[in-house]
Amino acid sequence: MPFPLAQYIAWFEENEEKIQQDFFHFLRFSSISTDPLHHKECLKTADWLSSYLRDIGMKTELLKSPGLPVVFADSGTKGASIPSVLLYHHYDVQPVDPVDLWTSDPFSPRLDGGCIFARGASDNKGQCFITLTALKAMGQLTRDLPLQIKLFIEGEEESGGAGTYVVLKEKKDLLKADFLCVVDFDLAAPDQPSIAMGYRGLAAFEIECINAQTDMHSGVHGGIALNPIHILTDIIAKLRDETGKITIPHFYDGIDPLSAEEKEKLDLSFDEKKYREEFGVGAFCQEKGVSLREANWLRPTIEVNGLWGGYTGAGFKTVIPAKAYAKISCRLVPGQDPDKIEKHFTEFLVQNTPKGAEIRIKWHHGAKAYRASFDSLLVAAVSKSMEDVFQKPCHYTLCGGSVPIVKDLAEAVGGDVALFGFALDTDNIHAPNEHFRWECFKKGFLTIARLLWELAEQGKKKP
Amino acid sequence: MPFPLAQYIAWFEENEEKIQQDFFHFLRFSSISTDPLHHKECLKTADWLSSYLRDIGMKTELLKSPGLPVVFADSGTKGASIPSVLLYHHYDVQPVDPVDLWTSDPFSPRLDGGCIFARGASDNKGQCFITLTALKAMGQLTRDLPLQIKLFIEGEEESGGAGTYVVLKEKKDLLKADFLCVVDFDLAAPDQPSIAMGYRGLAAFEIECINAQTDMHSGVHGGIALNPIHILTDIIAKLRDETGKITIPHFYDGIDPLSAEEKEKLDLSFDEKKYREEFGVGAFCQEKGVSLREANWLRPTIEVNGLWGGYTGAGFKTVIPAKAYAKISCRLVPGQDPDKIEKHFTEFLVQNTPKGAEIRIKWHHGAKAYRASFDSLLVAAVSKSMEDVFQKPCHYTLCGGSVPIVKDLAEAVGGDVALFGFALDTDNIHAPNEHFRWECFKKGFLTIARLLWELAEQGKKKP
Repeated sequence: MPFPLAQYIAWFEENEEKIQQDFFHFLRFSSISTDPLHHKECLKTADWLSSYLRDIGMKTELLKSPGLPVVFADSGTKGASIPSVLLYHHYDVQPVDPVDLWTSDPFSPRLDGGCIFARGASDNKGQCFITLTALKAMGQLTRDLPLQIKLFIEGEEESGGAGTYVVLKEKKDLLKADFLCVVDFDLAAPDQPSIAMGYRGLAAFEIECINAQTDMHSGVHGGIALNPIHILTDIIAKLRDETGKITIPHFYDGIDPLSAEEKEKLDLSFDEKKYREEFGVGAFCQEKGVSLREANWLRPTIEVNGLWGGYTGAGFKTVIPAKAYAKISCRLVPGQDPDKIEKHFTEFLVQNTPKGAEIRIKWHHGAKAYRASFDSLLVAAVSKSMEDVFQKPCHYTLCGGSVPIVKDLAEAVGGDVALFGFALDTDNIHAPNEHFRWECFKKGFLTIARLLWELAEQGKKKP
Repeated sequence: MPFPLAQYIAWFEENEEKIQQDFFHFLRFSSISTDPLHHKECLKTADWLSSYLRDIGMKTELLKSPGLPVVFADSGTKGASIPSVLLYHHYDVQPVDPVDLWTSDPFSPRLDGGCIFARGASDNKGQCFITLTALKAMGQLTRDLPLQIKLFIEGEEESGGAGTYVVLKEKKDLLKADFLCVVDFDLAAPDQPSIAMGYRGLAAFEIECINAQTDMHSGVHGGIALNPIHILTDIIAKLRDETGKITIPHFYDGIDPLSAEEKEKLDLSFDEKKYREEFGVGAFCQEKGVSLREANWLRPTIEVNGLWGGYTGAGFKTVIPAKAYAKISCRLVPGQDPDKIEKHFTEFLVQNTPKGAEIRIKWHHGAKAYRASFDSLLVAAVSKSMEDVFQKPCHYTLCGGSVPIVKDLAEAVGGDVALFGFALDTDNIHAPNEHFRWECFKKGFLTIARLLWELAEQGKKKP
């Protein structure tokens, strides 16, 4: 039986106002997981999600962890032997600073020019609410779909917390499914369906450099005491050579080459002019001899995500600070091990710290890179569903970012894996004025509904 | 007639409690001039000072300026032709951050272990209150001293504000004096009297580096967009070569050599071991072939006083920021011109900024270095007074810091100049837990009283 696309379009258009109302409610929670001050708000978000899911007929459970809980929901098997799918989302969001660069309050969602602006509007509350909306519609339009649907909505994606990993270990039986959809990725363009065949890994550190007991006057001590800001900037400048290559010894050891299939199927095109216009980026940083898309998908990076020391307020203070700080992260490619990267990085730091100064390194979180399989039935079903909705052939991409949980989640769930989503790289995720195109929301809704229908159809064909 | 030292010691000891009470009152004002939010408090401080000075019999006037006012006081000539001296102080203080490193509130002064802890306790409210206390004592003990005493207590020393300079231009006639004492300097050691024969100049800048419209996800954009933090750290790392020499072309042009007299009389000794212990400094930064004391007094520096970019809060945020910032200052030596330094620095920045990225430079404030004369009658009188109180020969030093106002002040006042004071380089000025030794306060009090007596005596000897 073909998927009743027209019927779903009509349902969406009829219910559009209510969908947005509920979505805005979800966006109003300031569920910033990296900041303990917002954990109460994270718990409220989880409660609200549970209640929403119960209302649309799912059996829900808050899976408690040492950190923030996972919202788990299950449509049940109704006693039949039917295929099962688990959809992954997260309800936590990034911090909002610099908050003065937002044109409106990050937790007061608004629709403007066809986009919804709010922290999390795209990453990942928007994508999550696509799934919730698709499930609601199915409950009304296609009541007895022979498919067991599970939802796993975690609360620590943005903070690298350990809690969700504990849940994955302890609740393995609950999570088993034939298919795993990780819906936390981008479309290649608003009208270009795509599936991410993998992502880069991550290794994140905090560094503290100390060279005095107290902040000191830059006149009285200038020329004598080495400024820890200069120690840090010297080290950071040494991390990459003039060709853009990372200079940490053994950093590139063991990197896996691309497979023939990856070389053939991956879309490595990159529109530099469009990128410049979209993001206002003036200077690029890629390695010599590596294309920008390759640098973003296939090569590792090392990057300072935060740096501070001395006086940063209004006016001027002529100070040599006692300490300076940096938050540094690496994006890793297949074959690189975050633990080994930490070791090599630490050695590099120690070797490049002047004698007498102190450097402290704090490991923050890490994950290996991931590759999905082109042989997956699920990838084929997602591709087919996207092509039906978008009326365009699906592209295969990689993701420069990291969704560290996928590897452990895939192990816990078993079955086929597909990474996809309906966000755009222009959504300003992790940045001020994050937003989500309502058009993408709608197409996402239709794709998810179409996909669940497709997976149920496949089950019917089974002997 | 010899100075009645014993009488002044007795007066101080009798009045010690009241002196501290009044001093604490002065310290409670949070007169941070660089922060406009504290300007009201600065004005309150100026009013309090005026009222204190009136109470001890001085004629006072608030000299208004486009910025914060100068507290001016005059003991008058009583119609006689007597010598005159102007003493310089400032009532404004540095900001207090990082405030969590203070062991007690910076504006709740307390006496602990023979030291008074508070922002400004040493720089310069402590030194200023020494002068006020000496004047109060003289009013009671030596009523008709044939000396006209003027006080010039400004409110913009820590912020490089332009207001005081306007006052210096407009009120020249008021300020004329035979002698100018700038009491904003250190003793070489608690028991070692010293006079500063000059100080380094200053050139201060703020830099903003921009390479995107908005903060961006370090996975989605990492490998493509050049991070402005890396642009800044690369530039900063290039400011000095491996021998510690500053690499900005023409930076060292025109530097004056030391005179024969300076070479002979300056005390260039430096106790590295003691310095390490006192400040906990592990790594040093001096130029190759230059001693630490020379590097601090006789060589220019370039130093980052503040640096920030990206996410600096709790937890982690994998961001490539749109912008990064630095506050940078140079200490200059005689022969260097802040305006030329700005030009050379700007050229260096532009040349070292990658094509496409934007760099903005904002000039903050500047001053040339200054040298006092060994031929000064006033220097001889200060030296004699210190030696009488401390019972030790006076040393001649330089100051690594800058008191930019001195040059213009010396021009306005005319007459001999002496730079001295009773602070210590261990007082944590411009840093958390600033403090002032009560012992130094007492010796300072006796020295100022002894000096004023001496200057009056010299006037009597005049034909």
